[in-house]
Amino acid sequence: MAGDHGNRRERRRGGRARPRPVGDTSQYRDLVNPFEPLRVLTHDQVDSLHDAALTLLEDLGIRVLLAEARELFAAAGTRLDGDMVYIDRELVAGALEASPSEVALEARNPARTVGLGGRSVVFVPVSGPPHVSDTDGGKRPGTLADYDDFVRLAQAFDVLHILGPSVEPQDVPTHLRHLHMTSSALTLSDKAPFVYARGRGQVADAFEMVRIAHGVDSDEFASAARCWTVINTNSPRQLDIPMCLGIIDFARAGQVSVITPFTLAGAMAPVTIAGALTLQHAEALAGITLAQLATPGAPVVYGAFTSNVDMRSGAPAFGTPEYFKASVAAGQLARHLGLPWRSSAPNASNTPDAQATYEHATSLWGAISGGANMILHAAGWLEGGLTASKEQLILDVEVLQTVAESFRPVAVTDDEIGLGAIAEVQPGGHFFGGTHTLERFQTAFYEPLVSDWSNYGQWTEAGGLDATQRANAIWKRTLAEFEAPPIDETVAAELAAFVERRTREGGAPPES
Amino acid sequence: MAGDHGNRRERRRGGRARPRPVGDTSQYRDLVNPFEPLRVLTHDQVDSLHDAALTLLEDLGIRVLLAEARELFAAAGTRLDGDMVYIDRELVAGALEASPSEVALEARNPARTVGLGGRSVVFVPVSGPPHVSDTDGGKRPGTLADYDDFVRLAQAFDVLHILGPSVEPQDVPTHLRHLHMTSSALTLSDKAPFVYARGRGQVADAFEMVRIAHGVDSDEFASAARCWTVINTNSPRQLDIPMCLGIIDFARAGQVSVITPFTLAGAMAPVTIAGALTLQHAEALAGITLAQLATPGAPVVYGAFTSNVDMRSGAPAFGTPEYFKASVAAGQLARHLGLPWRSSAPNASNTPDAQATYEHATSLWGAISGGANMILHAAGWLEGGLTASKEQLILDVEVLQTVAESFRPVAVTDDEIGLGAIAEVQPGGHFFGGTHTLERFQTAFYEPLVSDWSNYGQWTEAGGLDATQRANAIWKRTLAEFEAPPIDETVAAELAAFVERRTREGGAPPES
Repeated sequence: MAGDHGNRRERRRGGRARPRPVGDTSQYRDLVNPFEPLRVLTHDQVDSLHDAALTLLEDLGIRVLLAEARELFAAAGTRLDGDMVYIDRELVAGALEASPSEVALEARNPARTVGLGGRSVVFVPVSGPPHVSDTDGGKRPGTLADYDDFVRLAQAFDVLHILGPSVEPQDVPTHLRHLHMTSSALTLSDKAPFVYARGRGQVADAFEMVRIAHGVDSDEFASAARCWTVINTNSPRQLDIPMCLGIIDFARAGQVSVITPFTLAGAMAPVTIAGALTLQHAEALAGITLAQLATPGAPVVYGAFTSNVDMRSGAPAFGTPEYFKASVAAGQLARHLGLPWRSSAPNASNTPDAQATYEHATSLWGAISGGANMILHAAGWLEGGLTASKEQLILDVEVLQTVAESFRPVAVTDDEIGLGAIAEVQPGGHFFGGTHTLERFQTAFYEPLVSDWSNYGQWTEAGGLDATQRANAIWKRTLAEFEAPPIDETVAAELAAFVERRTREGGAPPES
Repeated sequence: MAGDHGNRRERRRGGRARPRPVGDTSQYRDLVNPFEPLRVLTHDQVDSLHDAALTLLEDLGIRVLLAEARELFAAAGTRLDGDMVYIDRELVAGALEASPSEVALEARNPARTVGLGGRSVVFVPVSGPPHVSDTDGGKRPGTLADYDDFVRLAQAFDVLHILGPSVEPQDVPTHLRHLHMTSSALTLSDKAPFVYARGRGQVADAFEMVRIAHGVDSDEFASAARCWTVINTNSPRQLDIPMCLGIIDFARAGQVSVITPFTLAGAMAPVTIAGALTLQHAEALAGITLAQLATPGAPVVYGAFTSNVDMRSGAPAFGTPEYFKASVAAGQLARHLGLPWRSSAPNASNTPDAQATYEHATSLWGAISGGANMILHAAGWLEGGLTASKEQLILDVEVLQTVAESFRPVAVTDDEIGLGAIAEVQPGGHFFGGTHTLERFQTAFYEPLVSDWSNYGQWTEAGGLDATQRANAIWKRTLAEFEAPPIDETVAAELAAFVERRTREGGAPPES
């Protein structure tokens, strides 16, 4: 309307202030995107980018820093020159044929198992920042206590489907950090955990802990995907030692590698979207090929993370129109390969504000519209990934829940249309007290987590808190009410003993 | 990525602080949505809703409060009972056949003329609030000075395509208000103006002023659409006197009626989306039919404004998942009719914060994904439409510009892919200084209006302003730098004389 009913609405905004419980959200556990994926490329353009990436791999090559990885390529007949590897298109085609198009990522609680691929959507919280922030304490280096809080927050919301390394616990020495992160992930949550690919020793420790948590032997462990990692290529055209080790070790153990070039147009990638996508595609194909050479059939996800820099300063930008289009295009490229694909919902704001929120929305809709299967950094990311924010996590969860609700079909039956109910209401009247309304009102609409729909007077009387301030209270309440999911006592004891033993043995330093 | 490149990114975030000019945005003037519209209904479901709406019009009827309008229906053979009108489906079908599927809305500056329909997208600023707010002065009743400022802001941004009644100038008496609003719209802007349908006298005055501004005679005035109005039905099932007069007078003068039921599910409409859409559809069809009875071929837009209330308080909610789905469904219904359709991008926040921003994003993506032609309240709406916010307008313009940029195609040529440029950069290197980059970097990416991509240190040193605080500085700068578009001196004098004469004659009171 054009405002002529303003006073009418103002009057209707009466009613009591209400508590806003975190309601039953279990319907968000298995999300299927019902929308036809958007396209920004023609079929011919997809073919052109795919072909250019194959030419890049064949003619320009990729630097592979791990000898063991180069040997795998060489054994498959690949041409090498020093640490440069020139991968031909037949080898890539064979690797794609071997890669599963859908992967079940099993959690220790079967109700938390998720599917990667098809029309499934898996939201992953912020992953990787060295810093943490909240509006009470500001920005500071992350600690294990912060990491644990993010595990609890990720566990608390059904719309966050698996765990990520939400913040780096910098108070734990690097040779022990993986033990404590994995222990927290497996005891404070029953969702599938993330494991960093920071060298063979850390990965072996983490796999052993995941095996213990699932109560299976080593053979059975490798029979299903139970944890996941992100492989970032060193764009342009380079795979470093820990990344190569990660690809190989995850493939051999049947665990999920999300192979994600971070191709910032204008910095580590060409300044054009087409160029950055070509580089992304080539590097992802190189990693996928290595995984399949290590173990044919290894579960891999096509990771896409093309954005652009601010060309005035070189700073990375997210949630830009270029990001949106690159994300939609990446979906087309992933479907061309027949692989599950991962996108992200990042922003570049320094604080949990309107910028963080609109950039998140643009990124997220790029991923959702494009039909992404895994959406990382879906909640809580700030500052281009340098800070994990508790308030932003809550604000973003509200948006994810809104998306999840948007996936539910519109029911169209005579009863839902309700001509009888319409007949009962006089012209100019209202539907508040009707039977059709009363039968449905408790579950008719999404109940928000953060949004405050009270009128201006009530809102002002209640303190006039903005959404970020309300989010602060919500994460505190969520943590205060948190109960860890059940875990078998023997399993918990075995995990603790493992951490204790490996700590005594010196843990495992990261490899580089 | 999962954060392992954090330090690398932090280093790259150097560079000088920079001015953020409002750049050349003339490419946003003619927006065409390239994306295939989303669907939430099957074809059968669209047919069911359409059929239910026709049954509603035939069997339940619509109350029409203006005798002249009832006479138009009666003359076409429609059954009447008191002020109830029972419209049969053949009459509706004939009206739809007479309605143009696309309309050119001509501005006094031909460069500002817009198309309504097809794949065109027209963004309209906030329309209708009685209050205005900014972060300096808070919320207060709107004045003519505020209204003028919103006209200037709407004029300043190319991504806002036509004018709306952004805030009610409550310091101008109601019998003179239309004269001053129309005068400001025609002199501070050269975009197509909005005219309130608040009775025959006010509409006639406004039409006369638009005629003067275009420098045409009365016959020529009616030969093209040059201004527009919103017709809000009094849901459920009622058309009041000023709305009926508006439909008739706009139709007879060849001006655009955007016929928009405000069907809040659970309040003025059934609690179900299907029911609210059926009511919306029926009421829109009734208004469209009346327009075509007044003048066959009259330019009309199918208006959709279905959202839901908060069932705990009865307060209206916007940017909800129900809103999203209703918007997408409305697009399907409008295309079923072959008419241009209008959606909106509202929110229910009391302050320009993250809630306002994410609700706006959800509403906006519902409209964009659904293929809306006119998107009202696209910038600056707060508090369910009770307040027009200058900061929110700026924040929302950033989002609209992002959408507009997303519409631009991705160029895929050998040169854009740039294998040669990739070959020039060593593995692990960067593209900052390359020829391919330097040739393109100045125009490669969207230059943001509000987003601040400086690093945390620079941002903190610059005052640590959040996006809303930066938006405050931007609207002030925009107003300070504002220059009214050129207008012929004779025309300006004629407009001033008209306002002076009509004021002396007593203006025109609103009719109800």
